[in-house]
Amino acid sequence: MNMLDIIIRKKNKEALSYDELKYAFNNYLSGKIPDYQMSALLMAITINGMNMSETLALTNIFIRSGETYDLSSIAPHVVDKHSTGGVGDSTTLVVGPICAALGLKMAKMSGRGLGLTGGTIDKVESIPGFIVNESKEEFFEQVRKNGFALSSQSDNLVPLDKVIYALRDVTGTTESIPLIASSIMSKKIALGATDILIDIKVGSGALLHTKEEAEILSKWLIDIGDAYHRKVETILSDMNEPLSFAIGNALEVKEAINVLNGKRSPLFDTAVEIAARLLTMVEGTDEKKAQELAIQAIDSGAALTCFNDFVTAQGGDLSKLKVSDKVIKVKAKKDGIIESIDALGAAKLAAKLGATKKTLDDKIDYGVGILLKVKKGDHIKKNDVLMELYVKNYNEEFHNGDFAFIEIV
Amino acid sequence: MNMLDIIIRKKNKEALSYDELKYAFNNYLSGKIPDYQMSALLMAITINGMNMSETLALTNIFIRSGETYDLSSIAPHVVDKHSTGGVGDSTTLVVGPICAALGLKMAKMSGRGLGLTGGTIDKVESIPGFIVNESKEEFFEQVRKNGFALSSQSDNLVPLDKVIYALRDVTGTTESIPLIASSIMSKKIALGATDILIDIKVGSGALLHTKEEAEILSKWLIDIGDAYHRKVETILSDMNEPLSFAIGNALEVKEAINVLNGKRSPLFDTAVEIAARLLTMVEGTDEKKAQELAIQAIDSGAALTCFNDFVTAQGGDLSKLKVSDKVIKVKAKKDGIIESIDALGAAKLAAKLGATKKTLDDKIDYGVGILLKVKKGDHIKKNDVLMELYVKNYNEEFHNGDFAFIEIV
Repeated sequence: MNMLDIIIRKKNKEALSYDELKYAFNNYLSGKIPDYQMSALLMAITINGMNMSETLALTNIFIRSGETYDLSSIAPHVVDKHSTGGVGDSTTLVVGPICAALGLKMAKMSGRGLGLTGGTIDKVESIPGFIVNESKEEFFEQVRKNGFALSSQSDNLVPLDKVIYALRDVTGTTESIPLIASSIMSKKIALGATDILIDIKVGSGALLHTKEEAEILSKWLIDIGDAYHRKVETILSDMNEPLSFAIGNALEVKEAINVLNGKRSPLFDTAVEIAARLLTMVEGTDEKKAQELAIQAIDSGAALTCFNDFVTAQGGDLSKLKVSDKVIKVKAKKDGIIESIDALGAAKLAAKLGATKKTLDDKIDYGVGILLKVKKGDHIKKNDVLMELYVKNYNEEFHNGDFAFIEIV
Repeated sequence: MNMLDIIIRKKNKEALSYDELKYAFNNYLSGKIPDYQMSALLMAITINGMNMSETLALTNIFIRSGETYDLSSIAPHVVDKHSTGGVGDSTTLVVGPICAALGLKMAKMSGRGLGLTGGTIDKVESIPGFIVNESKEEFFEQVRKNGFALSSQSDNLVPLDKVIYALRDVTGTTESIPLIASSIMSKKIALGATDILIDIKVGSGALLHTKEEAEILSKWLIDIGDAYHRKVETILSDMNEPLSFAIGNALEVKEAINVLNGKRSPLFDTAVEIAARLLTMVEGTDEKKAQELAIQAIDSGAALTCFNDFVTAQGGDLSKLKVSDKVIKVKAKKDGIIESIDALGAAKLAAKLGATKKTLDDKIDYGVGILLKVKKGDHIKKNDVLMELYVKNYNEEFHNGDFAFIEIV
C-alpha cells in the first residue's frame, strides 16, 4: 500500500477502504507521510466526497488515534452540544449552566478560534485565572459535582483531528461534509457523551452556506451517532447575521452573563431552545414543558449560580473580567431602517480589531470587539450609534468598507 | 491576494485570473508558499480543470520564470519532437539523427525518468562520457554544426516547471491535461523551437489512458502553439504495449543503434514517421516523399553518421557502452500465442531491476533491463525464451506476477 495510489484512487472518485484510510491518516499522524501528500488527499476528498462507509471508517480512525473517556460512572446520560461555528456564538456559556440547573450533566470539550471563527475556549480564557486544561480526574469530578465542565481539546483525545484540522484550515479543505462530520463526531464519541445536540449554522458567517448542505450534514451526523449508539439530534440555525450583540471574547462573556441574569435576546432564545431539547432527549420531557423549565432555570437565578460555580471551579475570577476602556462609537450617516447585519463582515471587523488569531502564532486581545447597538429592522436617525468598537488603540485605521456590513436603507 | 482564497476559488470550480496564477506559482517558486498549499491547488486544478485562458496564462508564467532561447540565428526553422512518455521509447535517439541527415536542425531538451517512466537523458547517460549539460553556447554551436543536440533541463529554462513537476509526481496530480499542456509547451517555447511534433502516447503504459483524453490534449497543445506563433502538430500512438524490444537505458541505446543500422521494427516505423512529419512541416515536402527520404537517410548510413557525430560532440564513447553480463532467460511455461505484452507490467519489472529511479535519491543502473524476444501474435512453444533479463545480481527475487505482463493463450 502506498500514499500515492491512495491519493490517485480518490482523485479518480473511487471509494477508499478502511485499511487505505488507516494507512494514510495514521502514517500522517506519525510523521511518515508529508503535509503535501495529505493536503492533496484532503483536497481530493473535499471535491470528490466520501460515502458513509468511508466517513464511518475515518471517524473510527480518528477516535482510535487517542484516548477515549467513559463517563458512565458519572451518570447514565451525559449531554453535549456543539455549534458548527458562527459569529458571536456564546451559546455554550448559557446552555451549560441551564442544563446543570436542570440536573443534567454536560461534559464539554471546546476549541479555539482561528481566522474569522471564535472559539469557546478563547472566550472563557478572557476570564482571568480560568483553567481550560484540567486533568481528566478534575474534569470528571467537576461534571459529577457541578453538572457542567469545559475543557480544551486535549492532546490525548483524537490527536488526529487536531493535526488534520490545522492542515485543512490552511489548504482550503474545511468545507467538506464528510470531513466536518468525522471531525465533530469523533470528538463527541471519544469524550463519551450519550446525548448530543448539534447546532448547524447556515449562512454567510458559517462553514456551510446553504440549507441543503446543512441538511446533508445533519443526516450524516445522526447516522454516525447511530453506528456508535449515541443519540444525536440537530437544529439548523441562521448565521447570516451575528447571533448576539457582542462579538469579541470578554464582550461575549458579559453578554452571556446578561442573558443568565434574565435579559431577553436572540442568544436567550437559542440557549433556551438547545437546553430544552437536551432535556427532552434525556428525560423525554414534553417540549413545551422543557422550554418552560429552561426559562425558569434562568429566571430563578439557578442557572446564574451554576455559571458562577462553574467559573469558580475552573479557577476563573469574574470580578477581573475586563473589556477595553478605549471605545469608538460608529454612527449612522443617514436616517433609515437596518436592512441587514452581515455576520461575515462583522467577523472580519472583529478579527481586524484583534479578537481572533490571524495565524497560529498571533495573540488574542480578549478585551476588544464589537458591541452592536442596533438589530435588523430598527428604525434609526442620522448620528444614532450603530455599534461601539472596543479597541486596543485609538490610532486604529478604518476604511468605509469596514462598517458596510450594517446595511441601512 | 492570498493563497487560501485562490485554492478555495479553484476548489469551487471558478476560473483563476492571470494575476492569481502568477501570485500562486511565482510565490511557490520563491519559497513563500509552502508545498502543502501548492499541492492542494494542483489537486483542485487536476480535478476541476482549467480553461484555455487559464492554461495560456500558466504557460506564460512558466516561460517567464526563467531564461528563453532565441534559435533564429541558427536557422529560420528549428524543429523539436516530444513524446508524452512511454515504455521503451528511445525514438528521439533515432529521429534526431534522421533529421540532421535530412538537413533539419533539432535542438532538444529532454528530461530524466522517475518511477515507471524512462527519460532520454538517462538513456544517453548510459554512454560513458556523455555530457548532458553543455553551456548554451556549446549547445547552439552543436545544433548549427551537427544539426542535432540534446540537453538536460537546465535550471535557467522554465525553473517553475521543474519544481511543479517534482511536486505533481508525488501528489497524484500528473494526469491533468492543462498541467501537462503548459508543462510541455512552456519548455518547447522557452527553448525556441519553431516547428514542434508531439507524440501523444495513449494506453496502460502512458500518462493518458484514453483516445478522448489524448485528442483533448492535442487540441490544447496546438492552441497554445498558435498563441505563440509556433507550428505544433501531434500524432497519437498506442502505448498499451512497449514501443520496442528493449526496456532499460543501455539496452535501448543499443536498439536505437540497431535501427539506425537499418533494422526494421516498430521503433524504425515510429521514428521514420516522426522525422518525415517534421520534414513536411518545415519544407512542405509531400508526405510519401518525406517518408522515402527518411528511410533513405537510414539506409544510406547518413543517419548513423549523424548519430555518431552527435555522441562524439557531447563527449560520449560508444565503444564503452555496456549492458549487464548477468542475464536470466525467462521461458514460456506452455505452447501458445502471445496475446498481449502489457507496457505497464514491463515498466514495473524494469523498475524493479533498477532501470529507473524509485525516489529522487536513487541511483540508476544503466546496464539492467529487459530485452523482449517475442512480439504480439507470435506462436511459441513451451520453453521458448520470452525475454532476457539483464540483472545487477543473480540473487534477485522474482514472483510469478513479475512476468505476467506477457499473456500467452
